[in-house]
Amino acid sequence: MSRFFEAHRALLERAVEACRARTYWSAFPESASGKIYGETAKADGEVAFKALLGKPFDLDQPAERRVGHEVSPYGVTLGITYPAASADTLIAASQRAGEGWAKASIEDRVGVCLEILHRINRQSFLMANAVMHTTGQAFMMAFQAGGPHAQDRGLEAVAYAYDEMNRVPRGAEWAKPQGKGEPLVLDKAWRIVPRGVALTIGCATFPTWNGYPGIFASLATGNTVIVKPHPGAILPLALTVQIARAVLREAGFDPNVLMLAADEADAPITKDLVMRPDIAIVDFTGGPAFGSWLRANAKTDLVFTEEAGINPIVIASTNDFRGLCGNVAFSLSLYSGQMCTAPQNIFVPADGIDTNDGHKSFDEVAAGIATAIDKLLGEPERAAGILGAVQNEDTVARVNAARKLGRIVRDSATVPVAGFADARTASPLVLAVDAADEAAWGEERFGPISFIVKAASTADAIARAAESARRKGAITASLYATDDATIDAAADAFARAGVALSVNLTGGVYVNQSAAFSDYHVTGANPAGNACLTDAAFVANRFRVATIRRQRAA
Amino acid sequence: MSRFFEAHRALLERAVEACRARTYWSAFPESASGKIYGETAKADGEVAFKALLGKPFDLDQPAERRVGHEVSPYGVTLGITYPAASADTLIAASQRAGEGWAKASIEDRVGVCLEILHRINRQSFLMANAVMHTTGQAFMMAFQAGGPHAQDRGLEAVAYAYDEMNRVPRGAEWAKPQGKGEPLVLDKAWRIVPRGVALTIGCATFPTWNGYPGIFASLATGNTVIVKPHPGAILPLALTVQIARAVLREAGFDPNVLMLAADEADAPITKDLVMRPDIAIVDFTGGPAFGSWLRANAKTDLVFTEEAGINPIVIASTNDFRGLCGNVAFSLSLYSGQMCTAPQNIFVPADGIDTNDGHKSFDEVAAGIATAIDKLLGEPERAAGILGAVQNEDTVARVNAARKLGRIVRDSATVPVAGFADARTASPLVLAVDAADEAAWGEERFGPISFIVKAASTADAIARAAESARRKGAITASLYATDDATIDAAADAFARAGVALSVNLTGGVYVNQSAAFSDYHVTGANPAGNACLTDAAFVANRFRVATIRRQRAA
Repeated sequence: MSRFFEAHRALLERAVEACRARTYWSAFPESASGKIYGETAKADGEVAFKALLGKPFDLDQPAERRVGHEVSPYGVTLGITYPAASADTLIAASQRAGEGWAKASIEDRVGVCLEILHRINRQSFLMANAVMHTTGQAFMMAFQAGGPHAQDRGLEAVAYAYDEMNRVPRGAEWAKPQGKGEPLVLDKAWRIVPRGVALTIGCATFPTWNGYPGIFASLATGNTVIVKPHPGAILPLALTVQIARAVLREAGFDPNVLMLAADEADAPITKDLVMRPDIAIVDFTGGPAFGSWLRANAKTDLVFTEEAGINPIVIASTNDFRGLCGNVAFSLSLYSGQMCTAPQNIFVPADGIDTNDGHKSFDEVAAGIATAIDKLLGEPERAAGILGAVQNEDTVARVNAARKLGRIVRDSATVPVAGFADARTASPLVLAVDAADEAAWGEERFGPISFIVKAASTADAIARAAESARRKGAITASLYATDDATIDAAADAFARAGVALSVNLTGGVYVNQSAAFSDYHVTGANPAGNACLTDAAFVANRFRVATIRRQRAA
Repeated sequence: MSRFFEAHRALLERAVEACRARTYWSAFPESASGKIYGETAKADGEVAFKALLGKPFDLDQPAERRVGHEVSPYGVTLGITYPAASADTLIAASQRAGEGWAKASIEDRVGVCLEILHRINRQSFLMANAVMHTTGQAFMMAFQAGGPHAQDRGLEAVAYAYDEMNRVPRGAEWAKPQGKGEPLVLDKAWRIVPRGVALTIGCATFPTWNGYPGIFASLATGNTVIVKPHPGAILPLALTVQIARAVLREAGFDPNVLMLAADEADAPITKDLVMRPDIAIVDFTGGPAFGSWLRANAKTDLVFTEEAGINPIVIASTNDFRGLCGNVAFSLSLYSGQMCTAPQNIFVPADGIDTNDGHKSFDEVAAGIATAIDKLLGEPERAAGILGAVQNEDTVARVNAARKLGRIVRDSATVPVAGFADARTASPLVLAVDAADEAAWGEERFGPISFIVKAASTADAIARAAESARRKGAITASLYATDDATIDAAADAFARAGVALSVNLTGGVYVNQSAAFSDYHVTGANPAGNACLTDAAFVANRFRVATIRRQRAA
């Protein structure tokens, strides 16, 4: 079994290093190039995806019925059904599988995790289609974020788990001096004890990227995992589970170490699962309503959440106004604002800002951003490639309802997607409001909805943005400022509010982007989530340590 | 300020190494020797202690009234009063102090923690008197467990916190290659963000040993700490807070970084504190009733508990029957069974065990242990030095009520303590019961109460002991067996139940003893507690990480 560990050991060690250095590193190439993934990989992935449509999905786990009603945001009904079972059945099978998994060595378990990631990587084009037609992401984003970037996040969790388990020595001789007498000697050994059955609750927008850290952190530390996908985005996690089960079986483990718990929107299984004391760990990505219920009601205290936030941008001044407008336009447009890292509120001082193009009034800043969006999305094919489709029809309704919340600076519209006449789309709606109108900007409005908020001053803008983050949560913040005093003040305010701050992004890096092995995604220090993907705290409590100490025979 | 860090840096680095190697190491000498602590240290400590009696304790923190009704288990009324304030007052002062503390560098904070421990160490004899006359520990145990051993546990927590914070780089250049183009470059910086105000809830038996890990882990990671001592054991933590505040002030910090929240049994303040969302971390040592209330009701999810368990011994066979009996006798007698690590249930197969002295029946094993206790406690001065006094009168009542729970193998009695005619004492009560009589042995009976439980076989004994640990909690388990098959089976069973196992202790190491820098105290994997003192999980979530990433100017 350790052959998997040996095969991937160098990669693992490099990943552990990367987590510590946090300079740029990636294990899985984000380029959807035939030279990397094989010249026929793209076509093969599409064929494989189409072959899944309208059929029962092949997953040999305990099943009592079949479920599945996924419809692509691009208008295609997937028609795939998945095995489903009660919480009792799933937990019992998971616990049985856990006996062998808990006894496996760290290397065996980590080796299996690495091989799973390797095989998922080889299916990145199939995964891209699956992610695209469940989340609505455009193809290239679905490939990158749903494929290699998600795999990197999974590897990052494995690396943290491996490193953390290895901080516990396997054994030691403990010899306590006794003055002139013989020392007291104990032979000590330590074992990693997993928590039990872990549950990962997936989301509809980034099922793999947000799901892999918890899944792989729990698996590597010896827990078995039940994956409860969002009913609208089952396929990406079903493929993940299918690939993983094949590796587990090959390595001699019960494949029920990893199981899918598919359900349907009108017959959810999540509460059944988390109310059982047998569920020892919960990883959740989703809305704050269910998130807070979960933190209060799950039987286990070990609940890791990414909920939601309202991400601010503060614009104080810039040396590159055009770059600023273009960068912000892209951040608002990418995947139609459906990223948990996308900005919602853009705070601009009432009396405008100084730029390299001279002073710009509040309205000129707003107009600059609106124009940049129009320009970015002016060409339909490019627009579709950036915006993708809208995962949930509620988001379209939210956009429509939001129009009355402020002065429309740029209106939202549908965008044609070649080949998908029924795609559900919405380009960014941008509204201008006063800072006092907190009823408008002070709530999360998930989707392509943003507010340009007129603040009294830069200091007022920073204070309001940081306070909103502290109270309502935020995952990202962005600042444009040419002076160090403003940057330092914002750095202090946003660090205190537990938000990751990006400064002066005018080029090819966007505030939405969070890179594995470098960016700590979510701080866990404000209501946007109680945990970070990925740090030591994300893995250290998924296992415990049992001591066996033995008096040395005289 | 960093002078404290520099002064103690070598010790800190040695402590970090020790946590990883877990061979024997100790920073603070456990020998109460004049050569180490100064020839007059013992006398000075006693004088200093007596000077505190009957007076208001000097602690310059916000106060609205004074409280304190400590009575020594040795019969002396302490008559010391402490400042007390409402939860509002305490939290407000703590938060104000937190502003500067959060901004301090890792080195400054860790330096202050190390200096505090160093100064506490110099007061170990005063602390010994304080611990003795609140907990009832005999003087030598009060010196060692309340002094140097507790200081080692505090240092261990500081070392883990320091190591953990240093795993986060302070900054990095992130340069993502762009094919033939210029790489995308961000300068990234990371900051440690504390959680806020931490609360440590102390216990009456080991206020310093159990309190220091949480206090120092929270302080080192930038949180301010409110220490809520048990109303019966305020003085040891009041001295700790007093010494720490002097160091904080000297280092230029607001001394309210560490505050005492003394209260009285009939007007407790703990629930007031933990129901506030401002209390971000809770460390608790105490009973499971309040522990489970706390885990369910504290506003924060970050609750670290050591509650209670029922610690088993399984006797299967031995090569040293006399050593076994003597070792078990000492474990049952030490501090009158008031250690969280003390055994309660001694499982012996119904048909007896094989020993180096031939086969011993169940009754012979029971008699052997009883005789060893009698012999150990035969000389009154030695008996008093081992047993100490009984902290709480409820424990004496529990001993009296327990007599009817089984066949008395050895009865409990009071023991005279020279110089303290009113000392509250109780030697071990040992009862024999059948395994079926789980109503007797299956509950925690805190104090000098133990059961010799007649099991069907060794396998039955291990199964019952492990199952009890899994359901009711256990911190320690002990096994006597001469064959590896039994040892391996017990190692598997107790590891799964999350209990630290000691094997074949017949010499000078006792199952009750848990050594800093080597033994993981409590696993967190059964109801005896949800956390371990001390491992990475104990510190990693006490702080979060905020990112500031800045596009490099072109």
